[in-house]
Amino acid sequence: MFESAELGHAIDKKTYDRAEPKLREELLELQSTVLETKRFPVLIIIGGVDGAGKGETVNLLNEWMDPRHIETHAFGDASDEERERPAIWRFWRALPPKGKIGIFFGAWHSEPILDRVLANTKANDFERSLEEILRFEQMLANEGALILKFWFHLSKAMQRKRLKALEKDGTTRWRVGKEDWARLAMYQRFRKVSERALRETSTAHAPWTVVEGLDPRYRSLTVGRILRDALKKRLAIKEAPPQKVSAPPIVRGVDDANVIRALDLGLAVPRKEYEQKLAKLQARLALLSRHPRFKERAVVVAFEGNDAAGKGGTIRRITSALDARFYTVVAVAAPTEEERAQPYLWRFWRHVPRRGRFTLFDRSWYGRVLVERVEGFAGEADWMRAYSEINDFEEHLSRHGLIVCKLWLAVSKEEQLKRFQEREATGFKRFKITPEDWRNRKKWDAYETAVCDMVDRTSTDVAPWTLVEANDKYYARLKALRTLCDRIESAL
Amino acid sequence: MFESAELGHAIDKKTYDRAEPKLREELLELQSTVLETKRFPVLIIIGGVDGAGKGETVNLLNEWMDPRHIETHAFGDASDEERERPAIWRFWRALPPKGKIGIFFGAWHSEPILDRVLANTKANDFERSLEEILRFEQMLANEGALILKFWFHLSKAMQRKRLKALEKDGTTRWRVGKEDWARLAMYQRFRKVSERALRETSTAHAPWTVVEGLDPRYRSLTVGRILRDALKKRLAIKEAPPQKVSAPPIVRGVDDANVIRALDLGLAVPRKEYEQKLAKLQARLALLSRHPRFKERAVVVAFEGNDAAGKGGTIRRITSALDARFYTVVAVAAPTEEERAQPYLWRFWRHVPRRGRFTLFDRSWYGRVLVERVEGFAGEADWMRAYSEINDFEEHLSRHGLIVCKLWLAVSKEEQLKRFQEREATGFKRFKITPEDWRNRKKWDAYETAVCDMVDRTSTDVAPWTLVEANDKYYARLKALRTLCDRIESAL
Repeated sequence: MFESAELGHAIDKKTYDRAEPKLREELLELQSTVLETKRFPVLIIIGGVDGAGKGETVNLLNEWMDPRHIETHAFGDASDEERERPAIWRFWRALPPKGKIGIFFGAWHSEPILDRVLANTKANDFERSLEEILRFEQMLANEGALILKFWFHLSKAMQRKRLKALEKDGTTRWRVGKEDWARLAMYQRFRKVSERALRETSTAHAPWTVVEGLDPRYRSLTVGRILRDALKKRLAIKEAPPQKVSAPPIVRGVDDANVIRALDLGLAVPRKEYEQKLAKLQARLALLSRHPRFKERAVVVAFEGNDAAGKGGTIRRITSALDARFYTVVAVAAPTEEERAQPYLWRFWRHVPRRGRFTLFDRSWYGRVLVERVEGFAGEADWMRAYSEINDFEEHLSRHGLIVCKLWLAVSKEEQLKRFQEREATGFKRFKITPEDWRNRKKWDAYETAVCDMVDRTSTDVAPWTLVEANDKYYARLKALRTLCDRIESAL
Repeated sequence: MFESAELGHAIDKKTYDRAEPKLREELLELQSTVLETKRFPVLIIIGGVDGAGKGETVNLLNEWMDPRHIETHAFGDASDEERERPAIWRFWRALPPKGKIGIFFGAWHSEPILDRVLANTKANDFERSLEEILRFEQMLANEGALILKFWFHLSKAMQRKRLKALEKDGTTRWRVGKEDWARLAMYQRFRKVSERALRETSTAHAPWTVVEGLDPRYRSLTVGRILRDALKKRLAIKEAPPQKVSAPPIVRGVDDANVIRALDLGLAVPRKEYEQKLAKLQARLALLSRHPRFKERAVVVAFEGNDAAGKGGTIRRITSALDARFYTVVAVAAPTEEERAQPYLWRFWRHVPRRGRFTLFDRSWYGRVLVERVEGFAGEADWMRAYSEINDFEEHLSRHGLIVCKLWLAVSKEEQLKRFQEREATGFKRFKITPEDWRNRKKWDAYETAVCDMVDRTSTDVAPWTLVEANDKYYARLKALRTLCDRIESAL
């Protein structure tokens, strides 16, 4: 893999001086078109051995292009806000929006490689990290990102020489530290581990390019040209019109049974019993949220359900048991402009809570496989891939110690009608029934299928779905609270 | 100030039970209107003595209203990302957008009061903090925020009793810590200091209400009713149509002299000299940015200037001396939707750099007193107050150790015309001259006045303006670089 990057590639000054101004001009024009059309973000990942010109190349790219539309991120030590979230959170928050170029100086591959080199992790952990990287990059590519990954390589002898040269020069001495020499001592291991990482994470949509880092002219032209060609190629592709498939055909099982129909919506609790049990459950939740071990955990709850199924009321019964300083309720509505310029899950990642806190989502990332699927806002390919992207998202959360609780509040078609009519009769703005509610209702069966698919495809060990029979509000609230308490209790 | 909050106010259960449901209903409806009209944000500040029901009230407000549209923030220990910015940054980032309610459990007043109680600060520091609070709240109010501040009070005897009661109850014991008792011991001093703070920061647009915290029913109804009345009153005010004053009359001095006309735009540097000096200045900047003491500082540069004055080229000469990992260039364009829902300066505060970093703004917060003033996008009252808001902003930055550098690149009207024509002759997109550029040019004199006013009103000791003669690009770039180097050097 590294063989052709140890040949001592070099470009003479004359050739370089002839090629550089034109390349620069082209890059600048291409960047300007990317910015103008805002069709996709560009993500340039820089990795490799120390002293191979990573920093110089990042600076050069900023010099060649317009630095006002480049976001360069170096991922050094994580801040405490970052450490309290899954490791991948810091990359999510740094993703460039459509139209911009993001340069990541070290990215999601760096830590897994280093950890494996230092034997902090086992071979299997390393493999799992690579698998996660693959899935993450696949998602980014599916969301439209143009991803370019450059690996700067030097043979061991070349690296030693380069570090010495840097140390000798007064203006670059600051760049060489003890850890650089320590890493050189582990060169062979680093080479072996990174070779594996590169091999496994080099894909058609996010390939690694190994660049020999010895000769600045060679490496600069190489990176510049690959970037230029990739931008050209990508811009030449006429964007397909947004894939507007109509609601997909409703595919039923051989019989009529499904998880929604299997619910006994007649389940109910008398008021008195409700009040007693509610108080008990709220006290239980209050204690759990103040449990010393909870300080190291956090909770994410996704509330989904039919329109008028009582999500709001249920959320209020939960929050009233919690300390307002430690929870946030996120009402998911249309994405903002900044959110629309990012991959679908970005707007949920931004609300992932710090340790010791709750985030309650009133409607959630499941919108994509529910309303967006049924209404045809998302193409079939997009909502189909969303299942596994969502599973990955929840896996990241849960592996970091977050407790993920997902509740589907189900009412019958008749009960919904009754509630719609009741709401129309009251004058309260907040209970307004919109034409959209009535429209959604007409697609009851399509929604039912979408819900069943969602449960089948995303109810996992780490983040199971709980279906809540919600024709009776009391019953529903108690079941939701009990589920949440059970999830937290078993996690602590 | 606290006398009437030590009378032992109480509401009997019957009165409360009669009043509460109606109040709750009203609050919910008002909140819904606030959300729907998105006219202003609501900011509820909660302060006061421990054990006086602050937390309970915050929870109750979340229970009474729709928690999905309330953002509750408790400001405990600052995270490292917060500590690396001016103290007020964490409040800026937590401000609720228009339409939402933000509840701040402890806010900007807490630390100054506590620091003074513990004698960590001198009386004068305390006074300065109060003055800053006043200015900050004035700005928020001018930007449209509805601000309500509640101070929960208990007499010393009542507080002791309450802490004991909390400790005795198994479900509330967790809430009383050693520090609560320690603070009780300092009750008199706390009372004295906070009385001063309340007195000085209680204004017409952001008044404090002292609430006796002994009786839960009393304090709940009090807060609820004040909030209700304030919302009603505010919603009843018909929003004045955005104050569209035409460009203000150009007021000249008695003679024709001004800081712009005083510039000798003939200043120029020959190419050879430029290249030598540029290399030297870039090396100097590179070394300064790597100075060990720079790790504790950060730099904010505002680039302003006539259209086509060469800001972009100057910025590139600066960034190419820096390490791309440590700078960000922010091209200021139209604000995003999320930015428009916030006070004017919010979108600049969000880019304030962490320690050891540079943020270069290509156009800046001065837009308000330049283009927005001249084009009439901002009302006269709004751009007039912007001068002091901007001074406050820069004062916050500089007091936290940030180095603020402001550059105005000036070209003559003739030189601008030449550059416009040159740009129109080239085919490059990024140099496109828009109809707007030509329009701005027609208002040359109005812009000149605005620039002179800006310099007069915002060139301060902590953040002076440097006017750069930019008819000659070489001269301009060297002067900009030299100015930046000088600023950093004198700060280190």
